Order: sequence, then structure tokens, then C-alpha cells
Amino acid sequence: MLTFSATAVSTSDTGLTVKARDFEFLIDEPAALGGGDLGPNPVEYELASLLGCLNVVVHLVAKERGVTLSSFSATATGSLDPARFMGTSMQARAGFQGIGVTIEVTGDADDEELAQIARIAEDRCPVSDNLAHGTPVSISIVKQVAVEV
Amino acid sequence: MLTFSATAVSTSDTGLTVKARDFEFLIDEPAALGGGDLGPNPVEYELASLLGCLNVVVHLVAKERGVTLSSFSATATGSLDPARFMGTSMQARAGFQGIGVTIEVTGDADDEELAQIARIAEDRCPVSDNLAHGTPVSISIVKQVAVEV
Repeated sequence: MLTFSATAVSTSDTGLTVKARDFEFLIDEPAALGGGDLGPNPVEYELASLLGCLNVVVHLVAKERGVTLSSFSATATGSLDPARFMGTSMQARAGFQGIGVTIEVTGDADDEELAQIARIAEDRCPVSDNLAHGTPVSISIVKQVAVEV
Repeated sequence: MLTFSATAVSTSDTGLTVKARDFEFLIDEPAALGGGDLGPNPVEYELASLLGCLNVVVHLVAKERGVTLSSFSATATGSLDPARFMGTSMQARAGFQGIGVTIEVTGDADDEELAQIARIAEDRCPVSDNLAHGTPVSISIVKQVAVEV
């Protein structure tokens, strides 16, 4: 088993500084959603995470199948109803109702082969698996004990 | 409905440059996983996305309930079996088998109130909803048509 983690400290009600190993980056909401716009927002990172995973897995699966891809670009898009997030209605789900990804490649494969690679990559990509198939999420909030002087 | 998107261009079999609105950032795998280690990897961004979302929603729910949080720090951790991703075994799922989040706060709420905030935030956070409850993901790979000269 491989274990990954991210740690974060809030800089405002919307801003967060995140560390993953030696990397540090910012998350925030745009001004239109009440934030300071210091970085991409959480759901944009969610989409990016999916694209990053598919980049790795599509290249891996293509290589296994003897397909050379000389370019790879992609777009991920999702729409959500903000009502539940805002607390104004609990009718719709909170998150994206679906996520669509279009990947454009240059390479020596035909359409049938590309469809096959897409199907296999979707199954083997950790992020698309976590999104598509449901993942237990356990959240606890505790009072900070240690006090720095 | 609010629509969000991310676009990306591959820089290697593991490296990806992502754009979300005016923001640009890098995703890569660490050297131990065959990457160039130019940025956090996809599953680290997945965990970060969840933390970013919970930062916003926990603060929002606390405010609704009259609770002041004067500090917020958090850690998200997940473990996965890389066998399916690597294509060596299809027995385990590809992604995290579960994600645990611990949030430490300073504020005027008791443990019962914090547990209530955690439960409501989990339900209203778009990213935890997408992870916990399954989200249709549709992936297509097409040949790049436009040729830049």
C-alpha cells in the first residue's frame, strides 16, 4: 500500500496554504464566490487532479499497447448547483453532477484503439476510481491542544 | 448551475501543466513513481482539493451556527494499492480505499458542536460529496485535428 497526505493551514475563511511533501500551494475562492482569489478553488483542483491522473495512466496504457502518443492535451468540466453548499436547499447534491473529460492526442492509434485506452485508463486511474465509485471519507474536527508560545 | 473547468497540456508521460482561469500549476509524479517530481502528484491534489473545500464549508457552517473559529489546520491521508494502476492485478480498487481528514481548530465550540459541524460540512462540501457518493465521469480521447504551423 502507498500512503499519501496533504497538510494545510487556513489563511482566511476561503484561503488555504497546502503542503504535500516539499511542495506548497494556495487554494482560494474567486471574488464572485466570496474569496480572495489567491489561487484555483477546490473544485478546480478536483478537476486538475483527474487530468493529472489521466495523463499518467493514458500514457502508461498506451505504452503497454504499443501506441505512441506524441502530444496530449485535455479539458475537464463539471457543473454543480451551489444551493446545498450555500445551505439554501438540500434537494440537489453538493458536488459536480458529472465530470466530462476530453483528451486530444497526436499519435498512431485509430479511434477504436483510443476508445479502448480511454476505457482502461478510466478503470485504472486512482482519481477517476475515487470519483466514480464512491470513497469512504471520514472527517473529524478537534480542538487544537498544543499551544505555541 | 455553476460550471468550472481546467485545461492541461502534457509535458511528459507524468508531467502536466494545468490552467484554471488565470492560474497555472504543475502536476507530476515523484521520482520513486517514475516522474520528474516537478509538482505534487494527482492524488495529493485530490487530498488538497478536499481540504480546500472543507476549509470553506466548515467556516461557513460555523458562522451560520454562531461559532467563531480563530484557527483551522488540517491533514488528509489516504492509502491505495498501486497494483491496478500498474496493471499487475485487478483485485483491489485503483484509488484510495478511504480518506481520513483531521481538522484542528481553535474556537468557542464544545466537542459536540464540532462533531455536528463536521457532519454538516461533509454533506455540503462539493468535493467530499463527489468523493463519497460517486460521480459519473465520462472520458473520451480524440485525435487532435487543428495543426499549428
